[in-house]
Amino acid sequence: MINIADIEQAALRLDGVSLSTPLLQNFDLDRVARGRVLIKPENLQVTGSFKIRGAYNRLSQLTNAEMANGVVAWSSGNHAQGVAAAGAMLNIRTTIVMPDDAPKVKIDNTRRLGGEIISYDRYKGDREAIAIEIARERCAELVPSYDHEQIIAGQGTVGLELAEDAIEMGLPPDQVLIPCGGGGLSSGSALALKSRLSNIDIFAVEPLNFDDTARSFETGQRQRISDDVSSICDALQTPMPGEITFGINQLHLKGVLTVTDEEVRAAIRFAFRYLKFVVEPGGAVALAAVLFGKLETAGKTTAIVISGGNIDMDLFAEIQTELD
Amino acid sequence: MINIADIEQAALRLDGVSLSTPLLQNFDLDRVARGRVLIKPENLQVTGSFKIRGAYNRLSQLTNAEMANGVVAWSSGNHAQGVAAAGAMLNIRTTIVMPDDAPKVKIDNTRRLGGEIISYDRYKGDREAIAIEIARERCAELVPSYDHEQIIAGQGTVGLELAEDAIEMGLPPDQVLIPCGGGGLSSGSALALKSRLSNIDIFAVEPLNFDDTARSFETGQRQRISDDVSSICDALQTPMPGEITFGINQLHLKGVLTVTDEEVRAAIRFAFRYLKFVVEPGGAVALAAVLFGKLETAGKTTAIVISGGNIDMDLFAEIQTELD
Repeated sequence: MINIADIEQAALRLDGVSLSTPLLQNFDLDRVARGRVLIKPENLQVTGSFKIRGAYNRLSQLTNAEMANGVVAWSSGNHAQGVAAAGAMLNIRTTIVMPDDAPKVKIDNTRRLGGEIISYDRYKGDREAIAIEIARERCAELVPSYDHEQIIAGQGTVGLELAEDAIEMGLPPDQVLIPCGGGGLSSGSALALKSRLSNIDIFAVEPLNFDDTARSFETGQRQRISDDVSSICDALQTPMPGEITFGINQLHLKGVLTVTDEEVRAAIRFAFRYLKFVVEPGGAVALAAVLFGKLETAGKTTAIVISGGNIDMDLFAEIQTELD
Repeated sequence: MINIADIEQAALRLDGVSLSTPLLQNFDLDRVARGRVLIKPENLQVTGSFKIRGAYNRLSQLTNAEMANGVVAWSSGNHAQGVAAAGAMLNIRTTIVMPDDAPKVKIDNTRRLGGEIISYDRYKGDREAIAIEIARERCAELVPSYDHEQIIAGQGTVGLELAEDAIEMGLPPDQVLIPCGGGGLSSGSALALKSRLSNIDIFAVEPLNFDDTARSFETGQRQRISDDVSSICDALQTPMPGEITFGINQLHLKGVLTVTDEEVRAAIRFAFRYLKFVVEPGGAVALAAVLFGKLETAGKTTAIVISGGNIDMDLFAEIQTELD
């Protein structure tokens, strides 16, 4: 069972290779929230998302023999880049199964970082089965994108850094909002946050159409959502919570919030105009939850995680030209 | 004569109202530079540029009687927002003379921050004369945009923070590149940087068509450039260096670099794709200088200041869709 010591050790590994991000504030966001908002900008992280944290934590703990055989992963894009970058840093061969409709920026960056890309059709192929078959052929290790303790511990360093920086700034948050797909980031970060700030309220945030964690919270059992939904949040299109991640989230989360695609688009516009950040749809859900009052922020200190910034320019420009 | 104590005192004033920014690194930029690059992101500053530092430093030192009469400034946009925001923080009435072709985002934000805007035609009116006349009528204090010791001391806190954070990170830079219009940011920062890192090489960076500081360096006398030039860098369209700023820059700068509009546009694209930052043209000149090899960065530690991020979406989208 994963615990805070695993996350603290992951933090030491990541510190050794400068994989931390700052904690920021923005007066315009504070004005809208009518409270204080702390921003953890993982869009500024190496590869433009938090995913390198878990990938590096896992890859750096492989044995020499495992490193020699390389690793295989499947991902819609951010985990792909994280695995490829960690492989490049540790000199490990990486192969990543990616849907052919993944954002171009994510495919290009994964290739540039040295990852071998195996494409598949999101609506026909089974990426997990493809990855498992390749790993078996090559005797290579699999690097799951969320439901693995070393991955969760790596992503949990986001929460650990957030808690420690906020405490050092004298601004311990009352509540934290964390984007949630499979739950690796939210579960690891929740564990770390609770270890440092026992009274904090932690919320996962999901796109309305991919609210599998919200539905699972309601029933107490992991729920799978139907196959016929879509969302602008390509990074959060996970049909079902992970087994390990859901167990941790059940223990530590206060609840799950959902946001619409329109709210996400407005948050991306806000980030361009006021935060001066490039944020991808999946990375913007916690910001959207604050902007659209999904919970009370007035008079409180609220922390949000911006989980990634890998968005194609065409979509970015289209979103910016819409009227609020 | 301004000295390091003035900048240290300005830093204390700014710390009291949370006007500092972090010092960041980016692996993709390091790769292009073939060295280490430290990024001082003043686009993340309140109002989206460093200008609030000087404005707050000056406004917070006014007497009560001066505060009651309000202040008047002239600016193409970033100083306007800085003065308006500092006025809002200190409850001082602000009036700003702005060209009618200033970026819409800068005009809108200045108004939103409570600044009264007086428009004029950039090609016909004399903004300085208009501002002086208004100030005379109202017995209001003028807030010059660069050639004033309190303004220079405020902008110098950028260099002071940069030096202190870099030293704390164990990464004292070999060289620093600072965007230069009238020279307030470069002169104040140069003074601060030299006080902490005596061997550092400091370069100002200008747009090719507004290379008044470069030309003044060549002749040893302040040179005025002709009226018929243009540049995408609206924030750096100053025809002549300031008297005080040029004197300090002559003492402390190693040299002046210039970049073309095309290089600036490419830097804005790089910032979108790899830094996940929104950067305005004038804010991107130091980044452009590194990307286009205006000085040797291989094997060195180079710090750059990104001075602002206030760009209209139309121009941003147009720049992004161009091919590199």
